Amino acid sequence: MSSTAQAVNRRIVLARRPEGEPTEADFRVQKEPVPAAGPGQLLLRTRYLSLDPYMRGRMSDAPSYAKPVEVGEVMTGQTVSVVEASQAPGFEPGQLVTAVAGWQDYAVVEAAHVTRIDPSLPRLSYALGVLGMPGLTAYVGLLDIGAPQPGETVVVAAATGAVGSVVGQIAKLKGCRVVGIAGGPQKCDHAVSTLKFDACLDHRQPDLRERLKEAAPQGIDVYFENVGGAVLAAVLPLLNVHARVPLCGLIAWYNLARAPEGPDRTPALLSTLLRRRIKVQGFIIFDHFDRMPQFQQDMGQWVREGKIEYREEVVEGLERAPAAFMGMLRGENFGKLVVRVSGS
Amino acid sequence: MSSTAQAVNRRIVLARRPEGEPTEADFRVQKEPVPAAGPGQLLLRTRYLSLDPYMRGRMSDAPSYAKPVEVGEVMTGQTVSVVEASQAPGFEPGQLVTAVAGWQDYAVVEAAHVTRIDPSLPRLSYALGVLGMPGLTAYVGLLDIGAPQPGETVVVAAATGAVGSVVGQIAKLKGCRVVGIAGGPQKCDHAVSTLKFDACLDHRQPDLRERLKEAAPQGIDVYFENVGGAVLAAVLPLLNVHARVPLCGLIAWYNLARAPEGPDRTPALLSTLLRRRIKVQGFIIFDHFDRMPQFQQDMGQWVREGKIEYREEVVEGLERAPAAFMGMLRGENFGKLVVRVSGS
Repeated sequence: MSSTAQAVNRRIVLARRPEGEPTEADFRVQKEPVPAAGPGQLLLRTRYLSLDPYMRGRMSDAPSYAKPVEVGEVMTGQTVSVVEASQAPGFEPGQLVTAVAGWQDYAVVEAAHVTRIDPSLPRLSYALGVLGMPGLTAYVGLLDIGAPQPGETVVVAAATGAVGSVVGQIAKLKGCRVVGIAGGPQKCDHAVSTLKFDACLDHRQPDLRERLKEAAPQGIDVYFENVGGAVLAAVLPLLNVHARVPLCGLIAWYNLARAPEGPDRTPALLSTLLRRRIKVQGFIIFDHFDRMPQFQQDMGQWVREGKIEYREEVVEGLERAPAAFMGMLRGENFGKLVVRVSGS
Repeated sequence: MSSTAQAVNRRIVLARRPEGEPTEADFRVQKEPVPAAGPGQLLLRTRYLSLDPYMRGRMSDAPSYAKPVEVGEVMTGQTVSVVEASQAPGFEPGQLVTAVAGWQDYAVVEAAHVTRIDPSLPRLSYALGVLGMPGLTAYVGLLDIGAPQPGETVVVAAATGAVGSVVGQIAKLKGCRVVGIAGGPQKCDHAVSTLKFDACLDHRQPDLRERLKEAAPQGIDVYFENVGGAVLAAVLPLLNVHARVPLCGLIAWYNLARAPEGPDRTPALLSTLLRRRIKVQGFIIFDHFDRMPQFQQDMGQWVREGKIEYREEVVEGLERAPAAFMGMLRGENFGKLVVRVSGS
């Protein structure tokens, strides 16, 4: 505790609810004393903070699956943290855990709400990515909802992102043809040369629908939906009979302040689902933690054996979290986005 | 054969493809000689013709799950027919079968494509309804896709129709709260007093959304979708977390000539599916004939025991089929619509 006695806790709080795309003015940095742990609690110092698209939803007070971050409250987020002080049996200073400690240097959390980190991880930050919630999201969405069969075609957008890159690589392990969609030639090269996707299309180039048709000549059996917008419009006509659409995210629409201009494409969407007997299933990873043990066993093995590649973009310094988060919503990150808050 | 030697086969053919709502001019009556059965075939005379919403889709050449009726071809449709002449072993004149004989007095069909009718049916036409494809559609969609649990709330539109009336009654047998939606007070009375739904709302009255909220105070767990349009818009905000939407039909949109005016409600629909982890699954009964034996056993028993009520609207005479079909698309029928073509 002595090292933190005079320390300051920088906290990035929600200054106001964004309208459309978030801006710097929607965040505010507060400096507060480092808090103290009570009985059953831990004082944690943040090492890595995960930045994820779902956080945009928490900034709004629209109905959602989780309560929003209140104005003036610290932004929510999963972290890799080190125990600084423990008032809970079984925890010692220096231990590494994952927690939902938020966008701040220090946090006091209930010991029951943290998870110890396997010290044999190739990288500590993997606990926030390929071996953490984004990896589990890819695993459950693709395997449990998408249920891809060998020889089928799987399409995933945000193909080099935290979730998409794992979706495509698991699909390859299952014997599927995998077509990624990503923003820019560099990401597309990575998806094909490193992640070993069969093809990757740059959504910033014209004629996405025609290029997708060429890349998926047998049609699309599983579309792992994490973007919506123009990518969905290109995918829809190519979905095969009995296709499955795990609906994981809609990042293209997260900043929408109102419904886009017409025409209303709902009838076309639902008619396609009906005619081709397609399943669309929304899911949120918090409902699927029962799959964690099997996931950690499978994914741990795939990562150790080098069967899953995983790219991270590490931003240095808590104060850069808002800008990095805003960039992510514009597709500027390349790989899983984490912020190094302290440590090496 | 002698009785049909000089007989005429009236055939109602597709005269042209309708634009929007079908009109009389989209149909044409042709009189032709009665055809003769070849080896392996049967000559059938139509007793009852089933009229169903899916036929609107077959009149268009938009991509669909089945090939369209060609212009000049006889309109497709399931029938109860009597064997007039048989060139196939095991079939005798006078036997009753179901077949896809179309909108005509006589048809020659392959014996392999007909199904013998259980002679103990309460009514012959039930083979086209509660104990036929509409009944199987309700059974598979509700039980296999909707998977309602006791105490859950099930909403079904077209509540007194061929499919909706069975959906609601099966849901009641499974211990659910059932809210129907139908057009007009007479249908709503029938749904509550005869079909024993907990409530039924008239979609022609204003404030459907508010009335639905009152009728489904615990929200909606299963929405059996067969209409789309304004009913879907009222249901969507009330769907519970983990709701299931078996997508069976979209009659409100079958006559759409183009996408409706904006705004585009696709983002709102998909965001709801995501936030509340809802499953929407399109299905077509032709994929589910493997469920027929179990269905016939269960439904046969429910009908014999009086646990399922079933209302039919019988139109007299083949020539009235086009007008009755157009009326059905406007919601004018009350119960399963069948045409008596011959016999009593």
